[in-house]
Amino acid sequence: MTYQARRIGVLTGGGDCPGLNGVIRAVTKTAQNDYGATVIGIEDGFEGLVEGRMRELTHQEVSGILGHGGTILGSSNKGDPWHYPVEVSEGRIEVQDLSYRALRNVERWGLDALVAIGGDGTMHIASRMMDAGVNMVGVPKTIDNDVPGTDVTFGFDTAVTVVCEAIDRLATTASSHHRVMVVEVMGRYAGWIALMGGVAGGADVILLPEIPFSWEPVFGKVHERQSLHKRFTIVCVAEGARLPDGDEVVAEMDKKRTDPKRLGGIGAMVARAIEEGTGHETRATVLGHLQRGGAPTVADRVLATGFGAAAAHCAARGEFGVMVASRNGIILPVPIAEAVAGQRRVPPDHHLVAAARSVGTCFGDR
Amino acid sequence: MTYQARRIGVLTGGGDCPGLNGVIRAVTKTAQNDYGATVIGIEDGFEGLVEGRMRELTHQEVSGILGHGGTILGSSNKGDPWHYPVEVSEGRIEVQDLSYRALRNVERWGLDALVAIGGDGTMHIASRMMDAGVNMVGVPKTIDNDVPGTDVTFGFDTAVTVVCEAIDRLATTASSHHRVMVVEVMGRYAGWIALMGGVAGGADVILLPEIPFSWEPVFGKVHERQSLHKRFTIVCVAEGARLPDGDEVVAEMDKKRTDPKRLGGIGAMVARAIEEGTGHETRATVLGHLQRGGAPTVADRVLATGFGAAAAHCAARGEFGVMVASRNGIILPVPIAEAVAGQRRVPPDHHLVAAARSVGTCFGDR
Amino acid sequence: MTYQARRIGVLTGGGDCPGLNGVIRAVTKTAQNDYGATVIGIEDGFEGLVEGRMRELTHQEVSGILGHGGTILGSSNKGDPWHYPVEVSEGRIEVQDLSYRALRNVERWGLDALVAIGGDGTMHIASRMMDAGVNMVGVPKTIDNDVPGTDVTFGFDTAVTVVCEAIDRLATTASSHHRVMVVEVMGRYAGWIALMGGVAGGADVILLPEIPFSWEPVFGKVHERQSLHKRFTIVCVAEGARLPDGDEVVAEMDKKRTDPKRLGGIGAMVARAIEEGTGHETRATVLGHLQRGGAPTVADRVLATGFGAAAAHCAARGEFGVMVASRNGIILPVPIAEAVAGQRRVPPDHHLVAAARSVGTCFGDR
Amino acid sequence: MTYQARRIGVLTGGGDCPGLNGVIRAVTKTAQNDYGATVIGIEDGFEGLVEGRMRELTHQEVSGILGHGGTILGSSNKGDPWHYPVEVSEGRIEVQDLSYRALRNVERWGLDALVAIGGDGTMHIASRMMDAGVNMVGVPKTIDNDVPGTDVTFGFDTAVTVVCEAIDRLATTASSHHRVMVVEVMGRYAGWIALMGGVAGGADVILLPEIPFSWEPVFGKVHERQSLHKRFTIVCVAEGARLPDGDEVVAEMDKKRTDPKRLGGIGAMVARAIEEGTGHETRATVLGHLQRGGAPTVADRVLATGFGAAAAHCAARGEFGVMVASRNGIILPVPIAEAVAGQRRVPPDHHLVAAARSVGTCFGDR
Repeated sequence: MTYQARRIGVLTGGGDCPGLNGVIRAVTKTAQNDYGATVIGIEDGFEGLVEGRMRELTHQEVSGILGHGGTILGSSNKGDPWHYPVEVSEGRIEVQDLSYRALRNVERWGLDALVAIGGDGTMHIASRMMDAGVNMVGVPKTIDNDVPGTDVTFGFDTAVTVVCEAIDRLATTASSHHRVMVVEVMGRYAGWIALMGGVAGGADVILLPEIPFSWEPVFGKVHERQSLHKRFTIVCVAEGARLPDGDEVVAEMDKKRTDPKRLGGIGAMVARAIEEGTGHETRATVLGHLQRGGAPTVADRVLATGFGAAAAHCAARGEFGVMVASRNGIILPVPIAEAVAGQRRVPPDHHLVAAARSVGTCFGDR
Repeated sequence: MTYQARRIGVLTGGGDCPGLNGVIRAVTKTAQNDYGATVIGIEDGFEGLVEGRMRELTHQEVSGILGHGGTILGSSNKGDPWHYPVEVSEGRIEVQDLSYRALRNVERWGLDALVAIGGDGTMHIASRMMDAGVNMVGVPKTIDNDVPGTDVTFGFDTAVTVVCEAIDRLATTASSHHRVMVVEVMGRYAGWIALMGGVAGGADVILLPEIPFSWEPVFGKVHERQSLHKRFTIVCVAEGARLPDGDEVVAEMDKKRTDPKRLGGIGAMVARAIEEGTGHETRATVLGHLQRGGAPTVADRVLATGFGAAAAHCAARGEFGVMVASRNGIILPVPIAEAVAGQRRVPPDHHLVAAARSVGTCFGDR
Repeated sequence: MTYQARRIGVLTGGGDCPGLNGVIRAVTKTAQNDYGATVIGIEDGFEGLVEGRMRELTHQEVSGILGHGGTILGSSNKGDPWHYPVEVSEGRIEVQDLSYRALRNVERWGLDALVAIGGDGTMHIASRMMDAGVNMVGVPKTIDNDVPGTDVTFGFDTAVTVVCEAIDRLATTASSHHRVMVVEVMGRYAGWIALMGGVAGGADVILLPEIPFSWEPVFGKVHERQSLHKRFTIVCVAEGARLPDGDEVVAEMDKKRTDPKRLGGIGAMVARAIEEGTGHETRATVLGHLQRGGAPTVADRVLATGFGAAAAHCAARGEFGVMVASRNGIILPVPIAEAVAGQRRVPPDHHLVAAARSVGTCFGDR
Repeated sequence: MTYQARRIGVLTGGGDCPGLNGVIRAVTKTAQNDYGATVIGIEDGFEGLVEGRMRELTHQEVSGILGHGGTILGSSNKGDPWHYPVEVSEGRIEVQDLSYRALRNVERWGLDALVAIGGDGTMHIASRMMDAGVNMVGVPKTIDNDVPGTDVTFGFDTAVTVVCEAIDRLATTASSHHRVMVVEVMGRYAGWIALMGGVAGGADVILLPEIPFSWEPVFGKVHERQSLHKRFTIVCVAEGARLPDGDEVVAEMDKKRTDPKRLGGIGAMVARAIEEGTGHETRATVLGHLQRGGAPTVADRVLATGFGAAAAHCAARGEFGVMVASRNGIILPVPIAEAVAGQRRVPPDHHLVAAARSVGTCFGDR
């Protein structure tokens, strides 16, 4: 049997995510062990493809990296070859179409296939590269867990673990001081991190983009807890949580969101509103980049290994234009196009939302 | 709408497991919040039911326990009411049928339903209680992840995390000293812990009950690694790993297993064999009870919450004779009978076994 | 031998700190085991003493709490009995002298001695209580490690561990994206947390209150790292880090500090300055309350146990007016007065500062 | 000012220990940054010196390793150049004096000074090398914390942290099942790990080499706990814990210790004795190599950095024949001879032993 790909490129695009190195390792080892193929690592995502920064990955280089956060290949956000920022004169940036360079480098390096690990943006570029004749295989990456084609993505379990540990920590202070603690977590459009992290941390209030909230139920929950047996409240709020449209605070938030240098996010805003609305001392903590970094959990290491091996199989066997995905515990290839259509958001009647309500969690909608 | 159960008992049977408290909490809160029901906690499994040791669980008692290992209710192995050990005279134990006492206590405490959280043994007793007229709801618990009725059980992810962290630790010593490190993990009949923990820890050799191994491939892997670029090897072996039938070592192992005071398990035996067979310094570590204890991971907290809420719904709504289960990400009730038929073992062609082989892991069979 | 104290009160004042429960446990067990004394737990610091909220602590209540963060007694910041906030009418707060109530409750509850666990403020009140005739024993508590009477306080090692873990996490993202990451840590007047946490995390720049910094060396370090072999930089900045007096930014920071609702702290400010000054993408993370919460480290558990036992000995044996302290690894009582004189700050020529400079860390002063 | 050493060798000897990489990093960076010196890394301890396996350490190679366990240089136990094992014919090993090779390699590589990081054995060899004319600087390394010249060594805090986390885990199982749990920790001659780990984990019984124990007090403690409020007991036992001389069990233990393949250590023996002596179910766990591996704690990273920087200063400035040490929080050089005289053991009246007794811990001696 002959295989389609003897030389396979691999790159990581977009924000970093625990598990990227696990994918790179599995792609490389599988390609080498099962197919005798050569794997070329491309630096800093599509940026490295345009600029020709790439190198052969040795067995040694990918050994021992499964448990390391980040990506040994580096990543970049400026990588769209069709819209590439170029400094045309001192300080003046112009966006140009440098896709010809990316394609030329694919040819120069003799890449029979290219594995692109990334989110939305990366998959869109992958589609376009495919149309331009490059044999692409996608590996979905989104810490928010909102890629539609797959049930779950690596990095998500690690992010949720960071959230849960943070809530555990904040709860001891909250309980000692009878305070309200607000923790702002990632999730601009999909609330999976807030939902899972909040349920695991035993948050009393969880605010998601998918379930618009009002202040009254939130204040009510705070009052109920502070006055009764417990005297502290934990609020877990997704970046993208929102009040119903038409509310003035939505407008204020929208304004802030467009300001790249905004100093206080939704966490600070919710904390202020609760303190003013209930009279109880309230503090906000923003987890931010802590959610992206560090060693991946077991689940993420296992998923990254499964994804990487599957992607190498697709690449080596000539199954192109697909993204590997996990569905009902099985890893399989799906068309890239399917993967990039929309977002997988939390259904308001999701069984975990229901379970959380049953144990007393308030989602701010009633 | 009237509900079937106003008073719901809950007990935990068998070995402990991270997440038990999460289930107790979710059962109690859901029963109280959604149905206004009363929950009676039974101490030390069916032992407490026989002996009448039980108490009403307050909201406060189940608050803040989601992240705590162990079980606030206690557990016991001597709990089968139909075969109950009784000290009939100084030091002489006799097994008696005390099921009438268990049934009498169900009546005395007015239990409309009884939620039993446990493994195999507990589910068998639950079936028998059901036949005797008690309204039972089961929640599966097995750290080995081998209950057939459900895709996954709580405690498993935590156990695997302990294994992975241990391998991470042992790998640094192995690599500094160019040694072989053998780590023995739980799994007498099913190798899920060894498989997942080994893949996540990047073990070079994984030995499972489901894939009988020979020494040659294991020695070969050790030689390959020690002589080439890396100079250390990590071997992850399940308690129940075994050589092909007929092998003398199987006989030796079988003999040891029947000896309750045996001093060295399979880990020590594999370490000795590797040291003698390859000449490389080898050390064994037995994780034992470390795998059962401590704070549950996020995945286990979430699953425990989902299971507990679902069990309370079944109990309160009169859906008896069922065990809650997770299938393809959905939590639903299945007949208890189905749950106790056999064991869910690792299929030798499981996709994770295949992925592990692709990244170079040896399972000792070839 | 007869002891001075049969009934010993204990309270925790000020911000919470990992290890408080360890002290409460050791005070209680030592008083009970070694002296047969009774220990009365006072709720929410001096607030509970004024309001008479206290209860006898049982052996059971203090069992198993050594590893738990927070304080089972609760704490409060409004506790000075001589300046006690009282709501005199709807919403109008007036500060009154309610010290007579605190003293009356000491008498009513028959407290022969009172162990006060807290920082600066608590020790000042303890001094005043001592003058008013109450037999006081102090236990120093300050997460910033700046109490002058003792070499080290519990909670500090835990806080530093949180900082180091956060830097480990942020470093993976920084390195993947070639970014500058600024992490703001506690330390308004003393930079011990930033120093220890920064050294342990391998921070490239550490900014302390004790060593005023200028922008040039900081920008220089960033340039050096981004242009050479590494392409990321970690900056660890204490809340109280500052530019030389006279600098405009000092004025701006001073203004912000007085604003209780200020949205961006020094971390955000430093990040903005670096991004503007060097052109490299920079992100800030504020650890805030994460540093106070959660399970204490081994060092903090051991120190808390030692402090608590020592305080109980002092209380029971009639050694009053002292605070327990750790000096050169020995735990001993020192006069409270000594403990509250000034602050223990980082000497700019501290050997760890020197070691950090040797491994290449920039403190922004040269 | 001219410095004594332009080329500095560094090696790690003996068992591995978290923090070794931190020392290597600090030696290298300090030598490079402060003295413009070159650092030569020697592989696998004195073995690499004899065999000439060494390489220049680059800045890049020592970057980012502060938080990694193990040693990038490798270690070895066969390293004494004066008693070097040589395979003289197939399988026949002979011990030879190859010190001339080690000295020749010092000369060939132009090493002006040699930093040896290791324990007892390494310091003895260092002394001998010094006598042979090599400029030696020692860095003490012993996970047991028993080097006499220094108050504390790196690796110890990490080991104790592993012990404490293990006890935390085991306690949940012990408490759920009303069991006795025995945990065997390192410490053949000095009981620091058992003492600190036991106190931090809240162990009920701690058995040290320095305090011979009898069975009666141990059984008594178990009975007291099982019968009263708590129903579980945690026993922390050092490898070298022992019964009074003359006891038969001592003889049995001594016999086992001389058997290199002994299957059960002191932990298993203590567990059996307790189960037989009290009738309570008892389980043993042996932590073994888990205590040596993994990421160093903050305290160990800071200490390693301080030791490494100090050793580089000594080497570069020509202060030879010394070992760096920590005394009362200050890092300073002491004569190597002083460091290797005897062992720093736990004084039976150590203040932490006293504090542990006060909180109810049994040391088995009364």
